[in-house]
Amino acid sequence: MKKLVNDVHSVVRETLEGFALAHADLVDVHLDPDYVTRRTPKDEGKVGLVSGGGSGHEPLHAGFVGLGMLDAAVPGAVFTSPTPDPILEATKAADRGAGVLHIVKNYTGDVLNFETAAEMADMEDIRVATVVVNDDVAVEDSLYTAGRRGVAGTVLVEKIAGASAERGDDLDEVAAIATRVNEQTRSMGLALGPCTVPHAGKPSFELGEDEIELGIGIHGEPGYRRGSMESADALVEELYRRVRDDLGLGAGERVITLVNGMGGTPGSELYICHRRLAQLLEADGVVIERALVGDYVTSLEMPGVSVTLTRVDDELLGLFDAPVRTPAWK
Amino acid sequence: MKKLVNDVHSVVRETLEGFALAHADLVDVHLDPDYVTRRTPKDEGKVGLVSGGGSGHEPLHAGFVGLGMLDAAVPGAVFTSPTPDPILEATKAADRGAGVLHIVKNYTGDVLNFETAAEMADMEDIRVATVVVNDDVAVEDSLYTAGRRGVAGTVLVEKIAGASAERGDDLDEVAAIATRVNEQTRSMGLALGPCTVPHAGKPSFELGEDEIELGIGIHGEPGYRRGSMESADALVEELYRRVRDDLGLGAGERVITLVNGMGGTPGSELYICHRRLAQLLEADGVVIERALVGDYVTSLEMPGVSVTLTRVDDELLGLFDAPVRTPAWK
Repeated sequence: MKKLVNDVHSVVRETLEGFALAHADLVDVHLDPDYVTRRTPKDEGKVGLVSGGGSGHEPLHAGFVGLGMLDAAVPGAVFTSPTPDPILEATKAADRGAGVLHIVKNYTGDVLNFETAAEMADMEDIRVATVVVNDDVAVEDSLYTAGRRGVAGTVLVEKIAGASAERGDDLDEVAAIATRVNEQTRSMGLALGPCTVPHAGKPSFELGEDEIELGIGIHGEPGYRRGSMESADALVEELYRRVRDDLGLGAGERVITLVNGMGGTPGSELYICHRRLAQLLEADGVVIERALVGDYVTSLEMPGVSVTLTRVDDELLGLFDAPVRTPAWK
Repeated sequence: MKKLVNDVHSVVRETLEGFALAHADLVDVHLDPDYVTRRTPKDEGKVGLVSGGGSGHEPLHAGFVGLGMLDAAVPGAVFTSPTPDPILEATKAADRGAGVLHIVKNYTGDVLNFETAAEMADMEDIRVATVVVNDDVAVEDSLYTAGRRGVAGTVLVEKIAGASAERGDDLDEVAAIATRVNEQTRSMGLALGPCTVPHAGKPSFELGEDEIELGIGIHGEPGYRRGSMESADALVEELYRRVRDDLGLGAGERVITLVNGMGGTPGSELYICHRRLAQLLEADGVVIERALVGDYVTSLEMPGVSVTLTRVDDELLGLFDAPVRTPAWK
């Protein structure tokens, strides 16, 4: 295994230290327990947003801490849920007197630990609402999940709910917006190869020379089929059809698109994928209101891509367009 | 070879088409000949900036077209210089009556083709000045270069010279600023593995299981030594010392840092590298004024990192901080 790390057990800690040094104008990094907060807290009386989960998906979540998105993020070990303690501390830090929304990707460990932290916060008189993101249409139930997994659509929930909180919506309203975004969002990904978790020291799975995994999870969990390599156009079409059909998307509707790189995919390939996605949406009469192309929710250095569609109306689009200032989204 | 492409000969074209679809609010993409311009041209009477070079280094250069950086970018085939024709067209498009600065990475083909285009522009009464970027301290002369190669420092030249043009400096002044940034900038990189040019279909070089290449070029050109994998801290220290010594950097001086991912490096590893770089600079009494961490100048999916330092004074820092709005830098 060749990786730019020191001790494999200090990867998350040293990443956070480097993150703190690079973005001291935007965030504060707290250690023991580990969490990241906005350098300039939002106004008193506004709802706080906290997300978190296993590390290895950078820039998710800490890269999205700042004005217009998260108030705090909680990184666990690589591909491992954070424990309740740092989630509680992050929740307390994020609370500005109006309660806190937990944005949780649907993995059993995350759901459980955020739930425990919410109960602990309740005992300290902090009101917590929770939205569980489950945008991955690939499979029902999975290695670490009952139901569907939460993947790249999470950033759309963070962005739009973040704007809702910033404009002064109360906790019920922010939670309702987050829930609406999750309900209107579907994703699916594929991998051309595996990634290697540092402390494991070897690839998380193996693929043949011409083999790919469709419906891959962001921790390398199995998808719904393995197949031979095909053209970008054919692969994007397969992802698109499943996402579109599950979302029930039809002519005249409006979407935000996210073509997300999983860490080891050149930018050029992501644009080639976006090109096909845009063609398919146009052929179906769907309007792309905004397009994101880049590495938002990665799986370390995995080569692969996911496609996310979020159905939007004027309100969600307006919130999406609201100002944002975080290390990874400006 | 597994890549998210269609025809290997249409990679650049389809990337541009996807780029145009994703960023129609910011750029116009012209085909035959291929170049990218700002959607909203800068004011009449301001100096235009044009850069370009082989594709495969995304987001460089087209990702940096927009307010505060480039007026036009010219993408060649993958790892291949663009020909004079599109450079001329881009130069004409970028000219707002005050002349155009060509920012050229030091590769023989780029230098020659930009020079030819400048002569053709001169015949059309467009004044062109040129800065050749040669920030790579790794080697003198190389596969495609006489002298030193131009690598990740190019984005610092584009950012700071872009702000100079935007504030209304004349062509000589903008060229002088760009030259100053280049003179104050040094870079060096390393690769943990190769990348694969689509139309070549196989990796550009081979490394052993525990082997790395220090001083690697952004097209996979040889560096100054191959060695065994070491810790991130040790590797960053080697890059840093060579960059620092060549720049003659000493205590009390001020820098902008860029820890640049080459395409296949997880964000976490880049932050671990930045952590060490910041420690080393602090130990030497050098002040980090601004820090960039991310994929700015890539080599397709190459796993690796480069370190760039730019010595700054108040003027260069002020220009660095000026507003920017491009697809890849906002």
